[in-house]
Amino acid sequence: MDWETLAAELSQTTDTRIVLLVMDGLGGLPVDGATELETARTPNLDALARDAVCGLTDPVLMGITPGSGPAHLSLFGYDPLRHRLGRGILEALGSGVEVGRDDLVARGNFATLRDGRIVDRRAGRIPTEENVRICKFLNDNLPKRDGIAVSLFPGREHRFVARFTAPDLSDALSDADPQKEGRPPQPAAALAPEARDTAEVVNRFLDDAARLLEKEPKANAALLRGFSRFPSIPSMTDLFRLRPAAIAGYPMYKGLARLLGMTVLETGEKTSDLFDTLEARFQEHDFFYIHYKKTDSAGEDGNFAAKTAAIEEMDAFIPRLRALKPDVLVVTSDHSTPSLLKGHSWHPNPFLLHAATAGKDDVDIFTERACAGGILGRFLSMRAMPLMLAHALKLTKYGA
Amino acid sequence: MDWETLAAELSQTTDTRIVLLVMDGLGGLPVDGATELETARTPNLDALARDAVCGLTDPVLMGITPGSGPAHLSLFGYDPLRHRLGRGILEALGSGVEVGRDDLVARGNFATLRDGRIVDRRAGRIPTEENVRICKFLNDNLPKRDGIAVSLFPGREHRFVARFTAPDLSDALSDADPQKEGRPPQPAAALAPEARDTAEVVNRFLDDAARLLEKEPKANAALLRGFSRFPSIPSMTDLFRLRPAAIAGYPMYKGLARLLGMTVLETGEKTSDLFDTLEARFQEHDFFYIHYKKTDSAGEDGNFAAKTAAIEEMDAFIPRLRALKPDVLVVTSDHSTPSLLKGHSWHPNPFLLHAATAGKDDVDIFTERACAGGILGRFLSMRAMPLMLAHALKLTKYGA
Repeated sequence: MDWETLAAELSQTTDTRIVLLVMDGLGGLPVDGATELETARTPNLDALARDAVCGLTDPVLMGITPGSGPAHLSLFGYDPLRHRLGRGILEALGSGVEVGRDDLVARGNFATLRDGRIVDRRAGRIPTEENVRICKFLNDNLPKRDGIAVSLFPGREHRFVARFTAPDLSDALSDADPQKEGRPPQPAAALAPEARDTAEVVNRFLDDAARLLEKEPKANAALLRGFSRFPSIPSMTDLFRLRPAAIAGYPMYKGLARLLGMTVLETGEKTSDLFDTLEARFQEHDFFYIHYKKTDSAGEDGNFAAKTAAIEEMDAFIPRLRALKPDVLVVTSDHSTPSLLKGHSWHPNPFLLHAATAGKDDVDIFTERACAGGILGRFLSMRAMPLMLAHALKLTKYGA
Repeated sequence: MDWETLAAELSQTTDTRIVLLVMDGLGGLPVDGATELETARTPNLDALARDAVCGLTDPVLMGITPGSGPAHLSLFGYDPLRHRLGRGILEALGSGVEVGRDDLVARGNFATLRDGRIVDRRAGRIPTEENVRICKFLNDNLPKRDGIAVSLFPGREHRFVARFTAPDLSDALSDADPQKEGRPPQPAAALAPEARDTAEVVNRFLDDAARLLEKEPKANAALLRGFSRFPSIPSMTDLFRLRPAAIAGYPMYKGLARLLGMTVLETGEKTSDLFDTLEARFQEHDFFYIHYKKTDSAGEDGNFAAKTAAIEEMDAFIPRLRALKPDVLVVTSDHSTPSLLKGHSWHPNPFLLHAATAGKDDVDIFTERACAGGILGRFLSMRAMPLMLAHALKLTKYGA
């Protein structure tokens, strides 16, 4: 029996509450002998670690660097090697674009085309209002060919989401994006025989858009990448009998949460907003996913000091979390983002679980190295969900 | 998706270099309170451990004692429960015998037959020159039956490799070897219906050989075991985009390396030869497997002091390894060989990984017990390859 079948069989709804705080990209590497987490002053996280059990998690497999999609899927209890999500679908859902069973979506950029070559892949980062105007113009004027509906949804600056609606579209397509400037536009290519018709649909759209945008000074071409159809993935309610909620600011994470059936709660952009929202809605759900982006952003920028500061900023909110007395409180990351590497990495995530049913181990500070000595050992992130459910007494016995 | 598919998708060739030093059978068990590794004076390995991350590996699964084949396959990133290699194929490849798709190979012994019973399974360890003469005699005089070619390749003393060439031979055969002296020769038996014809071919050869060797005073019969066909296994270049090289003295390890597509570098018999070869060829490859046999041999002999001395001998070469500045340096064993047990065992292997992308953990000496507290935790040996590739920046991101 696989884990998803087992989960559906053993999960039960209870009154207990789980809070999963994801400090995106938290794990790091030493610079001058200490990681960002070791350098940060974190009295509240350390106190929590002393009252909790700790370990280290691998998002996919040891050595594998995950994108945000697989890293989060794993934390939510899904096997990231079984379920693969296209970037387009995450972007679409995160932007609030509704995606159904007959839809194919892709991430789009407006770009500048000169003499047959893409000279600026971001069309000079046109203002968002320009983007809104251009998307509306295209939606109103694109010819509808063969009954296939195409809709564009503006994002920030030059970014948009494209949605094609028709039965039997395929997402086995290469990106319609030359990736580098100075090259001609690149049509989408079918990566499987059944995608040939879809490639034609997409490339006709790109031609239509370029023709309609001919007079635009900057945004006179469109690029598309990350083609994806709506994936078939069971919801967290189906699998775990949860009423889950997400508190996240960025489209990508909201999109992923919607895909898994979480209610996305409205929140603001400040770190304190995450906790205001949690406190206001704490009675309505039994699983809360809180996403904190700053740690990852600083790591991606290679900014050790900013990442350290982001950790300290979050540390100050830990008492507010504990004051709510969730039955299970987990603090961890989806993947590591060492400032040293300026990007996601394969290094394991520090993991801390606090619950009345968990006891304590000997870990007395919350760092990568200290967590290595925790009672949970080193485990796959996808095992975090059964652990959280168990500590919340949401899993019944397996077998007699 | 399985690991091999994932590896082929994520691996990329880079200029970075990986060195994997396998101290065969390194892991041990305490005698008078300390293992061989704990007893040995290893200032260089200890210093390396202080600058590295450590853990413990299980070659196959906890509790499973592996042969050299599965133990090495696992270290090279192959699932040892998916790929099974016959001992015959390893011996053949290690002896430099070419093996193709239509070949069946086996390990052979010349033996002494008296009054219908095997009285010496090693034919008094006849001199190698005798073996060469007898193999040539048989190759020249064996009748060719049903178009099936049989070739014998002499090894040391009484050992040889037998190769049968014909389409559709099967390796589902029991050993044609009574295993103990005082018993009559034992024909090969088909272990599956499709192996019946092959069993006949093999047993006819054994009869022919005994007839032709009737006059030999010692080597008047042949025994065969470990029947194996050429396995279908992807190369390390196919899976990991590596240009791998092996530096090993023993046939078995050279054979395994060739099977996986490694270039086997010429080297001498002294321990220093391994490092002379590494230094001379360091620019030509991006993955080096160095095999050190003495630790295992001493363990197999139950010689605690000799194993301790072998560890100390290797320790002295660690500075030469570090001076080459490989991007990733791993020191571990394929399996444990405790002197106490005089053979391979299921105990986990101490594992140490040094890389600029790895940081350090709190392990300050290189022993089995100290490695148990390392940040890598306890993991399957087959995860060592993704870890080495990752630390050498040879794996791209999984998913968006």
